[in-house]
Amino acid sequence: MPVGTQGTVKAVPQGTLEDLGAQIILGNTYHLYLRPGHDLIARLGGLHQFISWPRAMLTDSGGFQVFSLSKLRKLTEEGVRFRSHLDGSSHMFSPEHSMDVQIALGADICMAFDECTEYPATEERAAESLKYTMLWAARSLQHFRENQHKVPWHGDVTLANPMNSDESPASQSLFGIVQGGMYPHLRRESAERLVEMDFDGYAIGGLSVGEPREFTRQIIAEVLPLLPTDKPRYVMGVGFPDEIVEYARMGVDMMDCVIPTRAARHGLLFTSTGRMNIKNKQFADDPNPPDLNCQCPTCSRYSRAYLRHLMQTGEPLGGTLNSIHNLAFYLTTMARLRTELDSGIGRVL
Amino acid sequence: MPVGTQGTVKAVPQGTLEDLGAQIILGNTYHLYLRPGHDLIARLGGLHQFISWPRAMLTDSGGFQVFSLSKLRKLTEEGVRFRSHLDGSSHMFSPEHSMDVQIALGADICMAFDECTEYPATEERAAESLKYTMLWAARSLQHFRENQHKVPWHGDVTLANPMNSDESPASQSLFGIVQGGMYPHLRRESAERLVEMDFDGYAIGGLSVGEPREFTRQIIAEVLPLLPTDKPRYVMGVGFPDEIVEYARMGVDMMDCVIPTRAARHGLLFTSTGRMNIKNKQFADDPNPPDLNCQCPTCSRYSRAYLRHLMQTGEPLGGTLNSIHNLAFYLTTMARLRTELDSGIGRVL
Repeated sequence: MPVGTQGTVKAVPQGTLEDLGAQIILGNTYHLYLRPGHDLIARLGGLHQFISWPRAMLTDSGGFQVFSLSKLRKLTEEGVRFRSHLDGSSHMFSPEHSMDVQIALGADICMAFDECTEYPATEERAAESLKYTMLWAARSLQHFRENQHKVPWHGDVTLANPMNSDESPASQSLFGIVQGGMYPHLRRESAERLVEMDFDGYAIGGLSVGEPREFTRQIIAEVLPLLPTDKPRYVMGVGFPDEIVEYARMGVDMMDCVIPTRAARHGLLFTSTGRMNIKNKQFADDPNPPDLNCQCPTCSRYSRAYLRHLMQTGEPLGGTLNSIHNLAFYLTTMARLRTELDSGIGRVL
Repeated sequence: MPVGTQGTVKAVPQGTLEDLGAQIILGNTYHLYLRPGHDLIARLGGLHQFISWPRAMLTDSGGFQVFSLSKLRKLTEEGVRFRSHLDGSSHMFSPEHSMDVQIALGADICMAFDECTEYPATEERAAESLKYTMLWAARSLQHFRENQHKVPWHGDVTLANPMNSDESPASQSLFGIVQGGMYPHLRRESAERLVEMDFDGYAIGGLSVGEPREFTRQIIAEVLPLLPTDKPRYVMGVGFPDEIVEYARMGVDMMDCVIPTRAARHGLLFTSTGRMNIKNKQFADDPNPPDLNCQCPTCSRYSRAYLRHLMQTGEPLGGTLNSIHNLAFYLTTMARLRTELDSGIGRVL
């Protein structure tokens, strides 16, 4: 899932994302709550309408950004009081408030309000953090079920909801988030209790927070078998191309990451032959497309020399064209993976 | 003509420019000479190939940017020695060198090397400045004619050259530039001598440099009748939508300006009902497209509320979508104008 933090996948027009085959994109609740505000977005019909994105969307709970971006956080059982990273204004996020905001934003998939345990964390700290996450998961679910009819597009039968295969009216879904740091028994406890609560899908959070990649893989391998296979299983915040391939083959259904777009804006391209820093001098007069095996709009039209020139001169088109290529690379990688997993071949790349 | 200073119309992909109907875009010789360098662009086949723009292009002479951007200029009859605004390195632009650079860049239309007289300027200063411009015009033309066969795409009969209606092979064209400040007799002298030299087209330069708009109009009105109507007549560096309509109706064939794209990046939109600062609070929850009478990709898909949000959050997509609208507004204005002038109606807007 390409990440559209503030209601835009940075530097890429929505029509281009559609052409690239993006089925679902992310919005960040923390950012959209602060600007332009969830009430305004709800008045305008919800996030799909506001940003003109007719396909699926997912919003996170806001928790991760509260912990990573905001200032002067105060955590209580009730929730988190924090100051905006933009203007220092004081705000409170609780499970109930996160649900209200996400229902107002109206993405197809909402996420329970959790605390993303930092890395490294002692077992005591991870257990303490998990206690909040589990309490908040239950309160998120209850508040969500009681209020999900308030979504701006409630009852609009024309809306596609990827979670509904039957004839039931479109509605939002809520995913629970497994935490527990790098401690398998905490992860297990978290997963089992969430599954008992019966969410619409399950995410593994608290990964890609600085831990060695081997730990990431181990936690995913521990947790996945505990989650029902008939519901989406989502690993949050990963990863590099080889990681998403590996995790998908382990059984992960969904992933999101800013890497393809953020790397692109810094000139790092992912290609069929590996990573390429397009700013390198060796590409200054290279007439070849970035990836000889890629049919994306960027590779179909532009040379490495031109992309390097755009980066050297700080031209905004550079970020756009690089992002288009990287997103195409990620999306075609996943599309190929889906086909090959469906066909039972197993060996993918 | 949309302006693509550094080989990109800022923030707008080439395919989008094509869809908008742009027939010709500008590149700035000064910028492209410094980065990535004209030799590199020539090695890669010329500017069309380098930036992937198959339609017509025009490069300016570099003179205007040398005078407005560079440091420590020293002007002699030979040319101008200056220091790069990027790294302070020392360079020399002469008429001959400007031609060599523009031939290497390989745009369809090149411009004679001139000195753009500042405003205000005394008559003595304007006459002195014009002396250089006229000397340099003759040297530009001679050097251009002697070397134009060195263009990277020389002899490629598949290339469209908007100046060639017959079967002759594609080649570059060179336009002379009328200067003379705000002094009609200097302008007249300049125009008559340039016409004697027999350029492929004629530009009126030294306008839009801070003078009152009434002066701009007067100079255009003075000079236009002195220029042959069977060759393109180009006013450089204008203007606002109402200006370009006015000048086109006076008989001007070509104009260029950064206004549509630069204004767009600052949130200023041109619409059928006037100017709109999309950053204004009144648009925060406005679900309407920027211009109710516009069918551009931006107005077809996005609301004022969303465009304002993109500006408020500093998202690069804001500059892109605003630029697309403003360019569409300019290009459709000119397309309508061409149709109505062709039909002899006269009254356009």
